[in-house]
Amino acid sequence: MILITNDDGYNSPGIAHLAGIASRFGEVVVVAPLTPQSGKSSALTVDAPLKLRSHAPIGEAAVYSVDGTPVDCVKLALHAVLDRRPDLVLSGINHGSNAAINNIYSGTMGAAMEGCVVGIPSVGFSILSHDTSADLSGTDDLIADIISKVLDRGLPEGVCLNVNFPAGRRPEGLKAVRAAAGYWTEEYKDYASPHGAPFYWLTGKFHNLEPDCPETDEYWLARGWATVVPIRPDQTATDAIGGIKTMLGC
Amino acid sequence: MILITNDDGYNSPGIAHLAGIASRFGEVVVVAPLTPQSGKSSALTVDAPLKLRSHAPIGEAAVYSVDGTPVDCVKLALHAVLDRRPDLVLSGINHGSNAAINNIYSGTMGAAMEGCVVGIPSVGFSILSHDTSADLSGTDDLIADIISKVLDRGLPEGVCLNVNFPAGRRPEGLKAVRAAAGYWTEEYKDYASPHGAPFYWLTGKFHNLEPDCPETDEYWLARGWATVVPIRPDQTATDAIGGIKTMLGC
Repeated sequence: MILITNDDGYNSPGIAHLAGIASRFGEVVVVAPLTPQSGKSSALTVDAPLKLRSHAPIGEAAVYSVDGTPVDCVKLALHAVLDRRPDLVLSGINHGSNAAINNIYSGTMGAAMEGCVVGIPSVGFSILSHDTSADLSGTDDLIADIISKVLDRGLPEGVCLNVNFPAGRRPEGLKAVRAAAGYWTEEYKDYASPHGAPFYWLTGKFHNLEPDCPETDEYWLARGWATVVPIRPDQTATDAIGGIKTMLGC
Repeated sequence: MILITNDDGYNSPGIAHLAGIASRFGEVVVVAPLTPQSGKSSALTVDAPLKLRSHAPIGEAAVYSVDGTPVDCVKLALHAVLDRRPDLVLSGINHGSNAAINNIYSGTMGAAMEGCVVGIPSVGFSILSHDTSADLSGTDDLIADIISKVLDRGLPEGVCLNVNFPAGRRPEGLKAVRAAAGYWTEEYKDYASPHGAPFYWLTGKFHNLEPDCPETDEYWLARGWATVVPIRPDQTATDAIGGIKTMLGC
């Protein structure tokens, strides 16, 4: 059985598309946010109760919503919806890139990482277009191939996958790479209220620190390829422990 | 200049305590959430404007709030509050553990990672007590020592620090370690509405998969030590790329 969630909401075109592909491989249950949850990262709802709602199925797939975050959806699906442990957690297809550092802000990947933390093979899928009417058919073959292979072979312990697709085309192929180094700049548009008080709205451009590096996701996405980055939720920089010991004298 | 934020809100005892210690090292500016933001991870506010408010100073430190998440606070501080790039971003002192896998759910560490992503040495501090009246004085010497050394020597590129303190005591000392492997179990309390409809509230217990391993944070925290885990916001599992290439044939 395959659990599917996302961060755009239970009724987004991306999740319907993913559920359609996944249904070729067995029973699918969708448990996804009631409302859009973009940029929610691994946030969870600690200070309010959560409600489950049942919705019209997508094909054969049962559909539920949770009035919380993508991580809430995975946790509550395991607690209150599924009668057994799923073989796979899928998240997406997200309408918007989750390449490079976007992984840490992404609700799509928050959900995939949650599946991974509890030991279930998990994959997040995203396409580089915020247009919810974008044609998603170019993703079908690669998604089916990844689902098939992950169901068959599993994933390394403590690792999930972050898959991104170029927009508006069938990808040239798939590259397994690392996240490009970079950060967001020019991050807010500035406004003034009718009374002259400032306020701010998030915007920004991604600044890629290594645009010419073929080891990175952004490089291949810009060239029409899909990318897969293996993601480890545990963020310990094990290679830095020795240096920190020396520096802090501990 | 030192930027301080947190996830418990601009008026929490933990942030006042941290600002007091940091003020020994120069100018401090506090830009923290208007309301509690526990469990907000690296979430950011994409669908609403943000307002800055000015509050009474903490000692000499100017204090602002943002009606958003911890990551919003760091981003908006850099965009609209600070007149220059800070030498250090500190987050905390969080009232509650951020050891082990809690790093990925933590708003405290979301803020510290945000400072790191834009290249500023950044440290998150947490204490293993949710009691906001807990005595924090046992943390003073180690926090001052860490601030002093990080200001002096910086941190490895792409790495920030996650520091946790045992509750109610002066720690035995500091251990640089990795995050313990584990996950949360028994995660919801189940309720029924007056009309019989189920709802759920997050709770749970942390299940430590390696309680006897002295390489981990949980091991030393349980024995009265403070811990520091170097954290890499980039979650690429670089050691897994080769295996994924083979598995997916790409």
